[in-house]
Amino acid sequence: MQIAIALYERFTALDAVGPFQTLGGVPGAEVVLVAERTGPVRDDTGRLALVADKTFDEVPRPDVLVVPGGPGQSDQMENEALLGWLRAADATTTWTTSVCTGSLALAAAGLLDGRTATSHWLALGELERLGVRPSQERVVFDGKYVTAAGVSSGIDMGLALVGRIAGDERAQTVQLMAEYDPQPPYDAGSPGKAPAHLVAMLRDRSRFSAARSA
Amino acid sequence: MQIAIALYERFTALDAVGPFQTLGGVPGAEVVLVAERTGPVRDDTGRLALVADKTFDEVPRPDVLVVPGGPGQSDQMENEALLGWLRAADATTTWTTSVCTGSLALAAAGLLDGRTATSHWLALGELERLGVRPSQERVVFDGKYVTAAGVSSGIDMGLALVGRIAGDERAQTVQLMAEYDPQPPYDAGSPGKAPAHLVAMLRDRSRFSAARSA
Repeated sequence: MQIAIALYERFTALDAVGPFQTLGGVPGAEVVLVAERTGPVRDDTGRLALVADKTFDEVPRPDVLVVPGGPGQSDQMENEALLGWLRAADATTTWTTSVCTGSLALAAAGLLDGRTATSHWLALGELERLGVRPSQERVVFDGKYVTAAGVSSGIDMGLALVGRIAGDERAQTVQLMAEYDPQPPYDAGSPGKAPAHLVAMLRDRSRFSAARSA
Repeated sequence: MQIAIALYERFTALDAVGPFQTLGGVPGAEVVLVAERTGPVRDDTGRLALVADKTFDEVPRPDVLVVPGGPGQSDQMENEALLGWLRAADATTTWTTSVCTGSLALAAAGLLDGRTATSHWLALGELERLGVRPSQERVVFDGKYVTAAGVSSGIDMGLALVGRIAGDERAQTVQLMAEYDPQPPYDAGSPGKAPAHLVAMLRDRSRFSAARSA
């Protein structure tokens, strides 16, 4: 089973590494980081680079496809190298997935038309504008399309998917090895729980006008 | 404020990226990935490489030092390039931290003598053997030394540290942007919660003899 994680300039690091760390636990899985070109790809802070080991052309038929999000996503929504690869690869995937604003690329590629999906909470309005039914669930399964909410939710998605692919015991083993027994020191991880003025501040700063008016 | 995350061959990716994603939220922080040599450093699966942008020599006095864990740690515990840098850098850090078995390197460098610290649950016996009081807490503060449990706990540690450095509101903002509202699909993230036969299986496979007998 080949699992391809797509990289592009200004992706968010944890969006890619959460699913990497969990989905890698599928027995026999070959996980590969892919991009338009091989070599280092910088994240949205400019301070971290992950190496793309294969080009999109070299990985035409992954079984599982993962698109992380990040501010760079806005440039990607008109990047035919990525969108074309997503459409072609999706034709034969078992699972097509995204974390955070990665769902905007899936939507821009036309793969989520009329489906229910999620995204970073600040991008749910944009997702709806692209013809997708937005969900506020953390991980959304709609057929073979699995979308996760913002950044860290890719860990939950990865575990859920390991369970579907390789069974509950395997997923529990992955969770135990990753010691994923989360104990956040604050309870501010979603807009319904965080202090209202912080939610408002982030909405004001957001690049998604649709999210601002939502 | 300079935050240095140390890399070495066969580190665990999420150990490094959890703190990277959260600590990067400290206003004005310069986060830098460092290693013995610059360039790609492969993780423990061999399928992911993070780029070290600076050498240890180029980052002699970080304010915050982060050592991720991973199977490669066992080679590092006698690697004077790493241990020597840890000792020298620690002399002027504000915070010296680790995730997972990264605490074994801090202990091997002599920085945790007689202190209370934690590590991956499979490595707590080894930590004790190195003269450290092992704790089963997820994040342990002992003076300026902050150690986190296995792999994913670096996210919780990072948030706690952002709170100490930059205040609760900043940490809550980082949590909200990362949408860190964890909802693991299973409750198997620690040895006290996971099915006992899975815990036993992983103990049997573990490279830490001390953990096996614990």
